[in-house]
Amino acid sequence: MKKTAVDINCDLGESFGAYKLGQDEEILKLISSANVACGFHAGDPHVMRKTVSLAKENGVRVGAHPGLPDLVGFGRRAMLVTPSELKDMFTYQIGALKAFVEAEGMKLQHVIQHGILTRMAEEDESFGRAILESIREVDPNLLYLTLEGSNLPGMATEMGFKTIRVAFADRAYGKDKRLVSRKTPGAVIHDLKQIEKRIEQLVTTESITTIEGKTLPLQFDSIMLHGDSPGALEIAKTVSGTLIRLGVQIKPMSELV
Amino acid sequence: MKKTAVDINCDLGESFGAYKLGQDEEILKLISSANVACGFHAGDPHVMRKTVSLAKENGVRVGAHPGLPDLVGFGRRAMLVTPSELKDMFTYQIGALKAFVEAEGMKLQHVIQHGILTRMAEEDESFGRAILESIREVDPNLLYLTLEGSNLPGMATEMGFKTIRVAFADRAYGKDKRLVSRKTPGAVIHDLKQIEKRIEQLVTTESITTIEGKTLPLQFDSIMLHGDSPGALEIAKTVSGTLIRLGVQIKPMSELV
Amino acid sequence: MKKTAVDINCDLGESFGAYKLGQDEEILKLISSANVACGFHAGDPHVMRKTVSLAKENGVRVGAHPGLPDLVGFGRRAMLVTPSELKDMFTYQIGALKAFVEAEGMKLQHVIQHGILTRMAEEDESFGRAILESIREVDPNLLYLTLEGSNLPGMATEMGFKTIRVAFADRAYGKDKRLVSRKTPGAVIHDLKQIEKRIEQLVTTESITTIEGKTLPLQFDSIMLHGDSPGALEIAKTVSGTLIRLGVQIKPMSELV
Amino acid sequence: MKKTAVDINCDLGESFGAYKLGQDEEILKLISSANVACGFHAGDPHVMRKTVSLAKENGVRVGAHPGLPDLVGFGRRAMLVTPSELKDMFTYQIGALKAFVEAEGMKLQHVIQHGILTRMAEEDESFGRAILESIREVDPNLLYLTLEGSNLPGMATEMGFKTIRVAFADRAYGKDKRLVSRKTPGAVIHDLKQIEKRIEQLVTTESITTIEGKTLPLQFDSIMLHGDSPGALEIAKTVSGTLIRLGVQIKPMSELV
Repeated sequence: MKKTAVDINCDLGESFGAYKLGQDEEILKLISSANVACGFHAGDPHVMRKTVSLAKENGVRVGAHPGLPDLVGFGRRAMLVTPSELKDMFTYQIGALKAFVEAEGMKLQHVIQHGILTRMAEEDESFGRAILESIREVDPNLLYLTLEGSNLPGMATEMGFKTIRVAFADRAYGKDKRLVSRKTPGAVIHDLKQIEKRIEQLVTTESITTIEGKTLPLQFDSIMLHGDSPGALEIAKTVSGTLIRLGVQIKPMSELV
Repeated sequence: MKKTAVDINCDLGESFGAYKLGQDEEILKLISSANVACGFHAGDPHVMRKTVSLAKENGVRVGAHPGLPDLVGFGRRAMLVTPSELKDMFTYQIGALKAFVEAEGMKLQHVIQHGILTRMAEEDESFGRAILESIREVDPNLLYLTLEGSNLPGMATEMGFKTIRVAFADRAYGKDKRLVSRKTPGAVIHDLKQIEKRIEQLVTTESITTIEGKTLPLQFDSIMLHGDSPGALEIAKTVSGTLIRLGVQIKPMSELV
Repeated sequence: MKKTAVDINCDLGESFGAYKLGQDEEILKLISSANVACGFHAGDPHVMRKTVSLAKENGVRVGAHPGLPDLVGFGRRAMLVTPSELKDMFTYQIGALKAFVEAEGMKLQHVIQHGILTRMAEEDESFGRAILESIREVDPNLLYLTLEGSNLPGMATEMGFKTIRVAFADRAYGKDKRLVSRKTPGAVIHDLKQIEKRIEQLVTTESITTIEGKTLPLQFDSIMLHGDSPGALEIAKTVSGTLIRLGVQIKPMSELV
Repeated sequence: MKKTAVDINCDLGESFGAYKLGQDEEILKLISSANVACGFHAGDPHVMRKTVSLAKENGVRVGAHPGLPDLVGFGRRAMLVTPSELKDMFTYQIGALKAFVEAEGMKLQHVIQHGILTRMAEEDESFGRAILESIREVDPNLLYLTLEGSNLPGMATEMGFKTIRVAFADRAYGKDKRLVSRKTPGAVIHDLKQIEKRIEQLVTTESITTIEGKTLPLQFDSIMLHGDSPGALEIAKTVSGTLIRLGVQIKPMSELV
């Protein structure tokens, strides 16, 4: 029942010009898949090059992390674009990142839309479809990262995608297996002991205990970290260290499916 | 001696959001290769999609036309970027356009840097090399458009590229076979009769007559039009019409080399 | 009962770099107040300078037309910014335009938020308040343009503003005195005869006839034109010509209140 | 002979959205004048608001620090704009910042162009004139910061400006009283003892000792710090602490001229 291998993924490449964000170099030593920003909400061509190159050096596989065209808002502000505009933005960004990945002799592994877009896609199916159509037209073999609790995993599967089920190390789950809103006390887990316990539970029983105290099954392939949160590096070390201690291999998601 | 087939290429896809530039739909009926802006100096993801799609409908092959990140200046203002920054900008832009081209089931055909970058690359070899390294890392089979009179064609050939030699229909040449500066009277040819004569001379004798009145050999594969100049459409019709009248086939550059 | 003087206002200065939009030079001969874009959704510093200078030459007073930071979307896509972000964007844009206006020896006359922001402000009072707080901190004597049917005019009056009530020449009104959605057939009036009639009715009876055929009182100070719609110039000529024919003076709004 | 009061100025407000740069809060406790970025090369409306407000709380006067429109390059890459484009960019940026300053009940104190623009203005008089014309049209009473060794101070004085002469605490001077290029070893002074000595020499004798060991008179009103260099805060503390120890008052430049 215990998982023998999981992926760890993390948002990276979020620096921009003279502006540094995150501890990419350290984090890349601990993870197996990087979600790299594509220049719309964060990142720039030079940062993308460097991040992809560093990922390669560390044996980390690269995915695209496209966002809304709102650098000053870090892509976090919902924008009422049309599905067709969203699709075009995605094709543009994924294509741009793919060029760097292939220039390094690698293959683009996956795609995961940036934060607010997950919510927009969950709330409006036409956004989800636009995202998936873009990914499919770029390469239908790209893996697509999904969370439980929305229609996105189903839509992706129906459209022929292999999906990667993501679990969170440092976020509380509600009884619907969805992440508890960050505004709720306890939504974000800072305690490394608790994170360690979460990881243990996940890999040994494929379950989580919700904020209400209920234990629910949760199938997953990859553990998602947050690169830019305070304490990100410590959390990454805890997650990675716990997996190693438990004898669970850390492997790029593409080797798990 | 008479050429039996030539390419006509033109800069297209230069609209941006609500801002329309050029008469892409009409021009696409007259040319065989489109140089599509990639979102830095002009164009946006939606315009790129639409331009590529229209090109396909018209049997026109698509190339990338990357520029400097200066939309308000239309990429026309030299910027003292580093060669490595330039290379990364190119990989980003070419990759983005390539995704749209491949999504339409086509193959990206060629690359030609935007205006001021040609001058920057001619003046500083490291810029030329950066551009060519980017193209090569994306796809060494991409065709590279060149003008006589600089070290760029030689550098491209040496780096293994097939180059496409460009001739101009509406610009005066000097005795060094370079374009006469736009500031010089007579540098830009508006007279359609003169343009017709230029085309006839080019395809029947592979020569041009310079602004000084000297006739010089000029080998070429493709005639370059300017999509956004006033009278662009009339010039395109004249060039295309003259070629047809002379029994010269208009073919994408990739079918000529 | 007949009005002896009204203002005509129009959105102008929406060009950007090499991208031209609207027929500012012609329109400026027909209006008395210009709503000038401030570089976020349209316009750039050079366009702002030129528009302000042309306005001055034509005796047209200048107001600020701030928008969302979304050039590719022309500021038309709602963005879930915070009220405090919106306030800061407004102070920035109004301040920038004010500098050009004062450099020309004029005084900034008014402010009117760009399209989608009116809707956002009507739906969420905190956005309306943010806009008005920004205007007040820049200059509490700036006039604020309002439409009937929302809480914005009341909020503005309560905050001490002089408001300018706007009437539309080419848009159908509903029975709530609000503009009929553009999606409704008949919402946009293209017929110049009808526009002429609307103007006559407005200035002689201060009333409008709704799309349902009901005649309702409508007090107004200024007639709003749309600079970038097709036929904009013809509509401007019709509105201006009708006013002149009726002996109604066309005067900047600041001379009416 | 000893100076009784000097100004300390520093570049601040260079954060952008989620991207933090510099230690503004700490530095503002040690200086008397802040050069605030205006959103083109760094800064955004929200950062500008916050920086101006923090400056006020700390009794620090605010000046504008306009730059080239190149956020990804932090405004450090020369761009071949025209003088008239540069003038318009400055009026826009100064106007935007001025609005925030006046909203806080303060008066904009000074202007200093961002890094590369000083070099562009020194090399091409038309850029210098464009900058000064912009400042003059916004407010001819704005103070203008100058360094010795170029024609800018003379041009500014001739155009009627009061200039503020700047001295550097942590940069080596050459025998022409100009800053030694950063590429030269020893150009940047990191040693706090040396910085302390420099300050002592400046305020007690109004002279500097060049990198060649020659002592030359240097009149100055303000000491310039660099907000974003490593060790910036320590240097600021050293400069401020040395002045206090020597009984020299730290006063905004506007109180010194």
